[in-house]
Amino acid sequence: MIKVGIVGATGYAGAELVRILMGHKDAEIVWYGSKSYIDKAYASVYGNMFTIVEDICKDDNLKEMAKQVDVIFTATPQGFLASLLTEELLEQVKIIDLSADFRIKDVDVYEEWYEIKHQSPEFLEEAVYGLCELNREKIRTARLIANPGCYPTCSFLSIYPLAKAGVIESEGIVIDAKSGTSGAGRGAKLENLYCEVNENIKAYKVASHRHTPEIEQQLSEAFGSPVYLNFTPHLVPMNRGILITAYANLKKKEDGTYYNTEELKEILNKCYENEPFVRVLKGSTAPETKWVEGSNFVDVNVVADPRTGKVIMLGAMDNLVKGAAGQAVQNMNIMFGLKEDTGLQLVPIFP
Amino acid sequence: MIKVGIVGATGYAGAELVRILMGHKDAEIVWYGSKSYIDKAYASVYGNMFTIVEDICKDDNLKEMAKQVDVIFTATPQGFLASLLTEELLEQVKIIDLSADFRIKDVDVYEEWYEIKHQSPEFLEEAVYGLCELNREKIRTARLIANPGCYPTCSFLSIYPLAKAGVIESEGIVIDAKSGTSGAGRGAKLENLYCEVNENIKAYKVASHRHTPEIEQQLSEAFGSPVYLNFTPHLVPMNRGILITAYANLKKKEDGTYYNTEELKEILNKCYENEPFVRVLKGSTAPETKWVEGSNFVDVNVVADPRTGKVIMLGAMDNLVKGAAGQAVQNMNIMFGLKEDTGLQLVPIFP
Amino acid sequence: MIKVGIVGATGYAGAELVRILMGHKDAEIVWYGSKSYIDKAYASVYGNMFTIVEDICKDDNLKEMAKQVDVIFTATPQGFLASLLTEELLEQVKIIDLSADFRIKDVDVYEEWYEIKHQSPEFLEEAVYGLCELNREKIRTARLIANPGCYPTCSFLSIYPLAKAGVIESEGIVIDAKSGTSGAGRGAKLENLYCEVNENIKAYKVASHRHTPEIEQQLSEAFGSPVYLNFTPHLVPMNRGILITAYANLKKKEDGTYYNTEELKEILNKCYENEPFVRVLKGSTAPETKWVEGSNFVDVNVVADPRTGKVIMLGAMDNLVKGAAGQAVQNMNIMFGLKEDTGLQLVPIFP
Amino acid sequence: MIKVGIVGATGYAGAELVRILMGHKDAEIVWYGSKSYIDKAYASVYGNMFTIVEDICKDDNLKEMAKQVDVIFTATPQGFLASLLTEELLEQVKIIDLSADFRIKDVDVYEEWYEIKHQSPEFLEEAVYGLCELNREKIRTARLIANPGCYPTCSFLSIYPLAKAGVIESEGIVIDAKSGTSGAGRGAKLENLYCEVNENIKAYKVASHRHTPEIEQQLSEAFGSPVYLNFTPHLVPMNRGILITAYANLKKKEDGTYYNTEELKEILNKCYENEPFVRVLKGSTAPETKWVEGSNFVDVNVVADPRTGKVIMLGAMDNLVKGAAGQAVQNMNIMFGLKEDTGLQLVPIFP
Repeated sequence: MIKVGIVGATGYAGAELVRILMGHKDAEIVWYGSKSYIDKAYASVYGNMFTIVEDICKDDNLKEMAKQVDVIFTATPQGFLASLLTEELLEQVKIIDLSADFRIKDVDVYEEWYEIKHQSPEFLEEAVYGLCELNREKIRTARLIANPGCYPTCSFLSIYPLAKAGVIESEGIVIDAKSGTSGAGRGAKLENLYCEVNENIKAYKVASHRHTPEIEQQLSEAFGSPVYLNFTPHLVPMNRGILITAYANLKKKEDGTYYNTEELKEILNKCYENEPFVRVLKGSTAPETKWVEGSNFVDVNVVADPRTGKVIMLGAMDNLVKGAAGQAVQNMNIMFGLKEDTGLQLVPIFP
Repeated sequence: MIKVGIVGATGYAGAELVRILMGHKDAEIVWYGSKSYIDKAYASVYGNMFTIVEDICKDDNLKEMAKQVDVIFTATPQGFLASLLTEELLEQVKIIDLSADFRIKDVDVYEEWYEIKHQSPEFLEEAVYGLCELNREKIRTARLIANPGCYPTCSFLSIYPLAKAGVIESEGIVIDAKSGTSGAGRGAKLENLYCEVNENIKAYKVASHRHTPEIEQQLSEAFGSPVYLNFTPHLVPMNRGILITAYANLKKKEDGTYYNTEELKEILNKCYENEPFVRVLKGSTAPETKWVEGSNFVDVNVVADPRTGKVIMLGAMDNLVKGAAGQAVQNMNIMFGLKEDTGLQLVPIFP
Repeated sequence: MIKVGIVGATGYAGAELVRILMGHKDAEIVWYGSKSYIDKAYASVYGNMFTIVEDICKDDNLKEMAKQVDVIFTATPQGFLASLLTEELLEQVKIIDLSADFRIKDVDVYEEWYEIKHQSPEFLEEAVYGLCELNREKIRTARLIANPGCYPTCSFLSIYPLAKAGVIESEGIVIDAKSGTSGAGRGAKLENLYCEVNENIKAYKVASHRHTPEIEQQLSEAFGSPVYLNFTPHLVPMNRGILITAYANLKKKEDGTYYNTEELKEILNKCYENEPFVRVLKGSTAPETKWVEGSNFVDVNVVADPRTGKVIMLGAMDNLVKGAAGQAVQNMNIMFGLKEDTGLQLVPIFP
Repeated sequence: MIKVGIVGATGYAGAELVRILMGHKDAEIVWYGSKSYIDKAYASVYGNMFTIVEDICKDDNLKEMAKQVDVIFTATPQGFLASLLTEELLEQVKIIDLSADFRIKDVDVYEEWYEIKHQSPEFLEEAVYGLCELNREKIRTARLIANPGCYPTCSFLSIYPLAKAGVIESEGIVIDAKSGTSGAGRGAKLENLYCEVNENIKAYKVASHRHTPEIEQQLSEAFGSPVYLNFTPHLVPMNRGILITAYANLKKKEDGTYYNTEELKEILNKCYENEPFVRVLKGSTAPETKWVEGSNFVDVNVVADPRTGKVIMLGAMDNLVKGAAGQAVQNMNIMFGLKEDTGLQLVPIFP
């Protein structure tokens, strides 16, 4: 039985870790860390857990936690883990960081976009970017996982097959992303009030969202050359879900025509044929966030548009599951040699 | 492995049966019955089931189904099962009926409220009202279960302890109920369109909803005398969830004062102390539908109001789970001698 | 042209006053008072007002405001106006208070329910309870209006005709109320976040909501005897709207039968036949909040239930309009001798 | 007083025409045409209109209507008006068509995308595309207005200034559009049920939506050369509102750098400085659909991204107002020589 500690267990991502791990037969949470609810019953913070979780929230003491657990999930704001990480800790415990601290390999890029100084750049090289479908082998032996961001996970998995296959141009990519409000966290902010979000849709952080360099870094690797792209997130009046609508310029085949939808889908099917959590939808079915809600699935599909020479790549995902807690547990499973889908066979809930 | 057939597998309640049974280790669906989607892939009707359910929808042929399965769930409109039920069928297969056909023991009452003639009243006596917390022993040996209505389940479990304990008057009970829209089913009706339901709340079928006699029948048993009450359902802009706010006149104790909240809660605690799916909330915490979403829980609480001599009894439940498919599976578990919570340890999803 | 000052113009009720007064041909806002946004452009706080309102927010200085305006609306927390009100102010300016400070005539009751000391009880007698349909004549000459609470307005107008007509018992009344989330105000509180409210319904302040004594006070007057009742508010996932479902015991007629629906509706029709803003719905149509959204209407209807001897009284209203800003403007119109519906001919918006 | 007839008055766009015209001092609806509700009270179809509209629905008899009214609005499915339009009709009455029948000048393009034969192509040349900001002068004398589609209106007004100014490339434009559900109409379709739309977002008609050629036609005119672009609509869980996020490649200035945000905004400001209904937002404020709800406004803004050489053009609008009924009334006002904003000074409703 893997002993688990969660730092930030009372945020939405932390709470989703708890929900998922309650159904994980090989893991057991022994430390519910929190900043705001120390000494309060966890079930008093999240009423859904009443009679399920009996534990009391503890503080966020990483050192003490490391002595008691096998793996720590840090579901914390940027900078938290970077400011406390030590070699000593990593010798004691595996760490899966749900923040952005160790995702961006280039410390300058990190500091420019996140506007904070990185406190422990010495671990950047060791940290493995925990996109399981991409880095499965490296994750197996990792001590420190940088769990990918929600938008980057869905964006990358939507674009990756065509990028790797060399059938789209690396220049001119546009990612138009839509997210439910749980992605904004549980902080009591005016802009996240029910009446401000409901019956409303807006773009935010246009041309400046911090997930941009993370997506660019990963796609640059896939393309084998530097990628600069446009990423525009939108806030949608729903709790969960991310939808990615991405656009790229198609390359032409030797006969001078563009790749068509069937050919592109074939690439997707091949790329993901053994992936348990990526579903390439049939025919022209467009992904819908509701079809993956509560599950670790990412649903993807593509449509070629010969009129414009572009391809539209679509992806849907639950931001709290595959976009955060689910992928973190998937990483844990890989790191501990468990079957990758242990505890993650979550059937999407509909309606 | 229990072989399961579902009639009406493509309605919302049927789909919830499928979702729950996907996680049930001792049951296997072998017949996805449907009226509208015969020969279509089930996963093309419910996209969440893509890669999970490979089956094709069949018709609703009860006779044929009975040869192939151990238990049939009928998630069908009123009158369907009553028009087809035979002794022969019941000798072959256990039946759990999610419709109202066998809930009301008095056939005149049924015909008055449902405005159809009952086609097989001869089975009314045998049918067991499948409210597990009430009829567990009878369910164990039943061949035919009348799975309770959504409103009646939540109403009854909210009021039952105080009724049975004799601390409230049977006369003058008011049940003000609120339900999410999935309770209205998947039929394409104008009144259930997004734009008609969203940003709106209304009462419907005031003083005339068909669940009224079902609640009255069960509370009459608990009180030991005939009960006539007011039941008012409301449609709430959300997918899932039922909230019951019930009002009754408190009896006075020997000292001439009313029972107080603590005394009433003690009765609830005692009544439900061994129930895995009924949670008596702590202190004055009011039930919220979101805390039980996707689970088989019913959350209840009570507040006495000494100013008026009334008690307010509150209950929250997921209408598709404990209010339909979850309770049906709970019945199946009991009938087949399984642990009652098999496949039902569903952690509520939040947010 | 009436010169208007608004204290608390940046709350939801204040903003609704602004929206309504923009379409009022005889009034002009000259002071947008705010606590949190002093010196900021009003349109930067409420983007809908961009290019419509050019003004900058000022502070909440009542004394200074009184010199510049003809009427002040105070859309402020409890205690604000009571702590500042003076005879001098009232000699200079008419005041319409949207808080509860002057609604409850009995200062002890006020202090018990609101848990603050009343700072100026000397004005309680003078203050006119601004329920226009009830107190039109007194409002005409008033200097100080206590604008009714949202729940009390809709509750009272739903029950009043039958109470006054003497066809229902004053004892045993139950008011089950449902409100959209704008009623909770624009404060950044965890419980009002989108993800906490969406897909959820709950009762709150059960048997303890502060609007209870206000409703009781007004119904006591209508009945001519003290009324104690149960009032249970619920939070509904929608922006606007209040729905009241009220229950009372019917009296019997001389022939020993209960009043029936038609007779009760006749009473409603008569009571409201000249009221521009109360609509008695036809037949058995149940009020829906969406049908009054954005307007000053209250839609009401009643259903008698001869099985139980109770009547269900239903009412729907926009909590920000007739439940706050609209009624406040209606009061202003009466006080200044304008046509009562000036600026209030707001057509409900649907969908 | 202009006499108005509405064909299709019981659809959502028709109902919005009614709502707006109720507040129009110079127009009066004398014919509420409907296909499904003939002889029913209009207020029984739309409860918000109770006590406001007393009229009974009539049929859709264009000929008879033409004798009684000055202007006909056709809020009907594609093909309706084209199949009935005659020179005789146009000599009697002005027609504002809210369908797509006369928007596409090239009949082949129309027939290809709409998959129906055009029944009266002889009127295509005469029909004026009723985008008021663009064609104000032509509208003044028109007999037949092709009222623009909702997506095209918002897309065009977001992109037009930069297109006309020659600062963006005509090739490679991507329009990612999001719409509330009222755009899907009031038909009782499974996919528009509350439970299917709520908590969900999806793209639909990817690379094949019929508004594509309409946008291309108008932008081709603005650019002075043929435009082919990508248009992807999404369905958002809200009643009203369209948000456009459009992407184009910036041209470089003579000094080899891209136009920056300030320069681009200057172009927008200039283009719309005299437009009453287009609001260029200040600074980097992103448009939100909620800020324009219920009004005839379109809010626009732009952000240049020097990293990629693209510009993001944003626009928000109420699809039923400026995207349908509001613009139709604006066209009527221009055609009848009224002040253009008569009856359209609708203050957006928030929250």
